[in-house]
Amino acid sequence: MKGAVLVKLFIKIRYDGTAYCGYQVQKGRPTIQGELNDAARKLFGAECNVTGCSRTDAGVHALCFCAVVEFRDPDNSGKPVTDIPPEKIPLAFNAMLPEDISVFYASWMPDGFHPRYDVKSKTYRYRILNSPYRSPFEEKKAYHFPKVWSDDDIKRMNEAAGYFCGTHDFSAFMATGSKITDAVRTVRTAEVKKEDDIVTFTVSADGFLYNMVRIMAGTLIEVGCGKLRPEDIPVIIESRDRHKAGSTLAPYGLYLTDVNYDS
Amino acid sequence: MKGAVLVKLFIKIRYDGTAYCGYQVQKGRPTIQGELNDAARKLFGAECNVTGCSRTDAGVHALCFCAVVEFRDPDNSGKPVTDIPPEKIPLAFNAMLPEDISVFYASWMPDGFHPRYDVKSKTYRYRILNSPYRSPFEEKKAYHFPKVWSDDDIKRMNEAAGYFCGTHDFSAFMATGSKITDAVRTVRTAEVKKEDDIVTFTVSADGFLYNMVRIMAGTLIEVGCGKLRPEDIPVIIESRDRHKAGSTLAPYGLYLTDVNYDS
Repeated sequence: MKGAVLVKLFIKIRYDGTAYCGYQVQKGRPTIQGELNDAARKLFGAECNVTGCSRTDAGVHALCFCAVVEFRDPDNSGKPVTDIPPEKIPLAFNAMLPEDISVFYASWMPDGFHPRYDVKSKTYRYRILNSPYRSPFEEKKAYHFPKVWSDDDIKRMNEAAGYFCGTHDFSAFMATGSKITDAVRTVRTAEVKKEDDIVTFTVSADGFLYNMVRIMAGTLIEVGCGKLRPEDIPVIIESRDRHKAGSTLAPYGLYLTDVNYDS
Repeated sequence: MKGAVLVKLFIKIRYDGTAYCGYQVQKGRPTIQGELNDAARKLFGAECNVTGCSRTDAGVHALCFCAVVEFRDPDNSGKPVTDIPPEKIPLAFNAMLPEDISVFYASWMPDGFHPRYDVKSKTYRYRILNSPYRSPFEEKKAYHFPKVWSDDDIKRMNEAAGYFCGTHDFSAFMATGSKITDAVRTVRTAEVKKEDDIVTFTVSADGFLYNMVRIMAGTLIEVGCGKLRPEDIPVIIESRDRHKAGSTLAPYGLYLTDVNYDS
């Protein structure tokens, strides 16, 4: 792309990730970024590129995903790329997007802002359908675990989640083969709740390693089933050994629920 | 079907009605009853027929729909049709059903029981996505009304819903062309609530007329928007005039949520 960056449009979106091979563009495959790029080009008729706050995996959903549409000025004319007021942009954007992606906020941002590097914390939620029976409304929206946990099991799972809080080396909760060298992250809050037959694990941190939330959720399931005790969590963290933690749960239970840019 | 009725299997199911032309069997079209009949025949290998508690329309969903599988005994041998214990039947049934239908309860019932005639009350919920923006997770799961109501609007809608309670002739809230002659029904509870961007109208009654809940919900929308006052509801009921009530909202916002057989 030629020309100086003119201006950045900050957007918040929701998406059902079921039909996509993740956020990031992959040639010839459906991706969230690919759909956003296509929609932005149609809407603004300008050379532009959409950068996201995170690279969610295939099947992962988002209730609040932040991204920036960067416009460049091919002839350095300095003219704004659109005269649509920002409050009207979400609806205009949605008219160009498939039904499983929805923009719900837009505002102009200064050039210096970066949607990934400037993130102060993110919140993810892992949803588990905890019922012997599948639910038509939770297909690909929650991980189905058929053995029903008691209130006491949920209490132990929540106690275990509490041990994730703080600044730790989370190597034990990172996909093997990751090229990250610094696995230290600060978890601010971590909580397990049950409402009807849905168990949620909600975790906020300054950053997440690859598959971190899905491995944490897989480990909490073992606590629920009595295979691990809450006090085993700090031991697993300390070990830095991926094999000590639970399995990586399916992507479709995972939701990015919040992105925070304020320190 | 030959033979005497042997026994009845009472089942509770959930379904996402999006892909179906309603509950009742229609030749050559996908229906909930058709799927249940096919699954029951595969599972029990017996001549049987599934009768439901209600005939939900195309696109309508159910969180709790009750039905009975009637088995007949072709050679009058008196042998039970299955030795699967009732608590194992839901999972066995689900293995034969598509993912958008799920059985979550089964028990044997005396021959005299009828799943429709013996209903004492039913509860329906109408879900409205009240946000300027569509949600990927509510497509065909809620009716989208983009003008956002205030807390005061919701309060007035709830007050209006309260006027539905009691025994009334609900002709004004019945689809024109219905062949029902007695339109008197007793509404036990009716409530409007808002949680995040979802507004729900929940109503229990001893019976419902054709399109009754969808017309009630369409009328409450007019209260929310200030076109009708709560006090107009009794006047509309009294008029028995379908044209005085609001429009019939889309089927995909409607859920059968409870069926009660106790008086």
